[in-house]
Order: sequence, then structure tokens, then C-alpha cells
Amino acid sequence: MRFYSFTLFSKVFVVQDLRQVSVVGLGLLGGSIALSVLRSFTGVKVVGYSHRGVTRRKARELGVATEVADDLGGSVSEADLVILATPIRTFEGVFERIAGALRDGCIVTDVGSTKVLAHRWAAAKLPKSVRYVGSHPIAGSEQRGVEYARDDLFERAMCILTATKRTDAGAARRLGEFWSQLGCFVKSMTPREHDRVFANVSHLPHITAAALINANDGDDLKFAGKGFIDTSRVASGPANIWADVLMTNSENAVRGIDRIMSELSKIRRAIESKNGRQIEGLLEKARDKRRRLIDYKIEKRELIQ
Amino acid sequence: MRFYSFTLFSKVFVVQDLRQVSVVGLGLLGGSIALSVLRSFTGVKVVGYSHRGVTRRKARELGVATEVADDLGGSVSEADLVILATPIRTFEGVFERIAGALRDGCIVTDVGSTKVLAHRWAAAKLPKSVRYVGSHPIAGSEQRGVEYARDDLFERAMCILTATKRTDAGAARRLGEFWSQLGCFVKSMTPREHDRVFANVSHLPHITAAALINANDGDDLKFAGKGFIDTSRVASGPANIWADVLMTNSENAVRGIDRIMSELSKIRRAIESKNGRQIEGLLEKARDKRRRLIDYKIEKRELIQ
Repeated sequence: MRFYSFTLFSKVFVVQDLRQVSVVGLGLLGGSIALSVLRSFTGVKVVGYSHRGVTRRKARELGVATEVADDLGGSVSEADLVILATPIRTFEGVFERIAGALRDGCIVTDVGSTKVLAHRWAAAKLPKSVRYVGSHPIAGSEQRGVEYARDDLFERAMCILTATKRTDAGAARRLGEFWSQLGCFVKSMTPREHDRVFANVSHLPHITAAALINANDGDDLKFAGKGFIDTSRVASGPANIWADVLMTNSENAVRGIDRIMSELSKIRRAIESKNGRQIEGLLEKARDKRRRLIDYKIEKRELIQ
Repeated sequence: MRFYSFTLFSKVFVVQDLRQVSVVGLGLLGGSIALSVLRSFTGVKVVGYSHRGVTRRKARELGVATEVADDLGGSVSEADLVILATPIRTFEGVFERIAGALRDGCIVTDVGSTKVLAHRWAAAKLPKSVRYVGSHPIAGSEQRGVEYARDDLFERAMCILTATKRTDAGAARRLGEFWSQLGCFVKSMTPREHDRVFANVSHLPHITAAALINANDGDDLKFAGKGFIDTSRVASGPANIWADVLMTNSENAVRGIDRIMSELSKIRRAIESKNGRQIEGLLEKARDKRRRLIDYKIEKRELIQ
């Protein structure tokens, strides 16, 4: 019932407002957005752009978009919604280069994993006549490149919308409907809150996974079991993208590392002083907290048991 | 061909030498050993023992062993092979209590995750007429209790045998054949080498997973995605068992934490000084190392792609 009324609502949005979506950057994420829009919306034109000729050629061969444009300005000039899916460090330059080509009222967003700088750059570089809202769909894989793009990447994924007092409320609402239509659970927060939370729950796992691997000798790793392999999985993600993320959210990342080190020190002290009850207490605390996390995810149907 | 000749070889071992296996401790591991022996060997009697009446009753109901004994001495007195599957901290006491009941030539082992102390306690408490060899099958789950016991828990698992200069070579060879028959890949090392390696590849993931969870606020965790959930999975293991492991391998664990903290500090410094190339270098190093690990595991068929 809920799904039905929701679909009706989306169709209204589609028909009235959304004729063209432009995706700048055609990697795994950009390609998957393009494919997902083609699958989830009827009659919407998807224009893709990549600065690399080889990617444009692959994207055309794979048919990830209605059209793949050869120039950036041309790719966005007719768009109702422009989505940046390039590395975060390029956002400032891309905003600057597309500023003159955008239609009045156009919604601009990006899918970067940090949001404070994206908002700052958008405010500085985009004209007042367009409406910027940040997006962070929590989806991806260790794979890279348009050849791994999938039209179901966003199904049951969380998507965080970021908005400030200056953000157009109508644009935020419509962008939320867009991501819902692609299968996302949409939540909103400020860019500052977003960057604090995701430094903790997303950047820190990556940092600890990398540290865990780097702390180990290659020969010892031959004895690694399933536990090690799972604990370190995220460290197989693209290093340049993650360097970008950490560079653009450095203060929160450093604070997170300090908290991890403080927790490691607690465990270290308990082990060194052979305080079995204290060790067990710290492990039990983690275990309980993780159980609550898993229960919450199952209740929210973000995890299927 | 290899499997066939191997099976023949095992049958010879079975017929000549193995009439009774006794399993002391009927949790997930002990119960699974008992079930696996019943499945993998013909005509071998499996006697189980637990100090808890409720566990003995459950084990009988589930039929995990040929027989569940009510007293410890009686459970091992006819055994050719005795396997301790109780928490590590109990080994010294169990060795002491079974010492007088064991048959001459009997092989005694344990499945604890640390081995130096197990060897020391065995040397101190067991009579010279029995032969102790350490075992560490790398298998388990986050589940606890005999009701989760499975007869396939050891299939494709690694099992480390630990032996010193004082260890009987024939007993080590036979014990290796036993674990192979249960489906394990068997490797040998000294207890000292074992405890160093597994502090690194097994205890450290657990410690970092626990620290990662403890460093995070419960409300923030609502935004945790698949990355966080995988990175923290092992922290759902039983806290008392892991406290035991860390207590009995404290020096290596502390050294490992120091190495992790040193790697975290490197990443922290690179982020704080906004050195993008250095951040990327550290993440790339981890990524490459993990790729080599996965390639190795696939090549050795320990991981199926």
C-alpha cells in the first residue's frame, strides 16, 4: 500500500519536473547512477560525461546512459538535475566550469563521501539561480570503473542528504524523492554532522583496516583466517578515492584516530596488567554494542537476517 | 587419486590405532569435533564430557557423541586420543585431574587458540607415558554452545599443530592425520612461533574490532554500513574466551597493539599534515598487501573465488 502511493507520488515528480539527469564522472558510482535512472524512471534522458575518452567510449558501448557527451558544459546545459560522481578534490573545479552552463532552477548534487567542503565550494562557485544539495549514497564496492556499473547498486542503500539553512527546501525534498526512487533509504543532516558521523562509522573502519594490514608481516598473513579477511576487507577500496576522503575530512578523521588509539590503550593496559576481568569487560562492551547495532539494522530492514 | 590413497592410509590408522576419542568440553568446538569424528571415522567411539549437567543432557539429546560421561576421569580412561575443548585457563587443572586416568601411549591435545602455556602445563602435569601435541583448528563461529555444533565445522579449515623438541614425532604425525581426516589443512610450528603469528593475524583483528566499536557512539552507529559491520564482525565472538586468549598470550598481544598504534600514528600524521600522497601511499600499501593475501588464499584453495 505504502509502496503503491509512493510510486504514484514519484510519477508526478517525474512527469512534471525531471526530463534530464546529467551525471559527471562515469566510474562505478556514476555509471551505476546512470543505469539506475534508466531503469527506475520512465522518459527521463540521462546524459553522461567523463573527462577520459576511453571511459566515454566504454560508457557508450555499455549503454549506461541515453547519451555520452564529449564536453562538460554541453553535458549539463539541459539538465534538471546534475550529479557529480567525480573524486571530491575535483568538485571545486567542476562547479566553476559548469556554473555558466546550468539552467536556472537546476538542482546540483554530488555523491562524495565528505560534505562540508562540497557545500562550501558550491556556495562559492555555483550561481544563485541553481540549487545545490549534498548527497552521500552509502553504496559502492571494491571494484572500480564503468564496466562494474550496476542498475541495482542503490537498492536498500542508505542515502544521506546534506542541507544547511541556505539550502532550498524544495530542492532537498525532490532530491530525496529521486534517491528513494532509486531504492535508497533517505536521511537528512547538516554537512557538519554528516562529516563527523561518517568519519566515525566509515573512515575509521578504513583506517583501522589499513593499519591492521600494514602492521602485519606478509609471511604471517599466510595464516590469516576468515576473521582477518573480513576485518580488513574495506582496505581493498581505491586508495586515491580514500585519500581524497581523508584529506577533505581531516579534522574528524584525526579525532577518530585519537579515540581508537585511546580504546586500544585501554585494552593494552588491561592485557599488560593481566586484568582478565577488565579485558573481558572491554570485549563484552564491544560485543553488546555490536549486537544492538545489528538488531537495529535488522529492525530497520537495512540488514536481512 | 590423492584423496583415494589418503583415505586408505587413514583407514589403516583408524583400524590399528584409534578406537576411542574423548572430548573434554562440549561447547561449539567440542561438540563439533565429536560430531565430525562420528561422521569421518568408522567404528570409533566418541566419549564426551562437560562439567555442566545441563550441557551433558543437551549433548545426549543431540547425540553429538557415542556416549556422554558423567565424570572426567571415566571419560578419558579408555581413550587413544583426548581432546581438550575447554577454555584455555582450565587446561592446567584438567591435565592435573586426568593425569592419573590416562592410558600409556595415549595422545593428548587441546584446541586452545594460544599454545605456549598449554605446552608448559602439559609438560608439568601429564605423566611421561602420554604424548601431548598442541592443536589449533582455525574454525569457529560467533555462536556458542553444543546446540550450534556442526559436523562440517573443520572442512577446509586450517589446523596448526604445535610441537617442540620434546614432542613425540609419531604422535604429531598421527594427530595430523586425524585433523586431515576431519577436513583440515594441517600445518606445524613451534608453540612460540604459533603464539607470535596468531597474536598478529587473529588476536589483533579482534582487538581492533573491539576498539573500533568502543570508540563509537551508539547513535552514530545507526549510520554504520556494510563496511563497519564487516570490519567489526569478529568482536561478536565470546568475550570470556577471548579474554582467556589475550591473558595467555599477553606479550605478543601487547607487541601487536604497539605495532597497530604505530601504523595508526603514521596515517594520523599524514592526514594531519594534509599530505595526500603519503595518505594514498599508506592506503595503497595496505591494498596491495591484502590483494597478495587474497591471491595466496585462492591459490591454496583456502578461499573459493
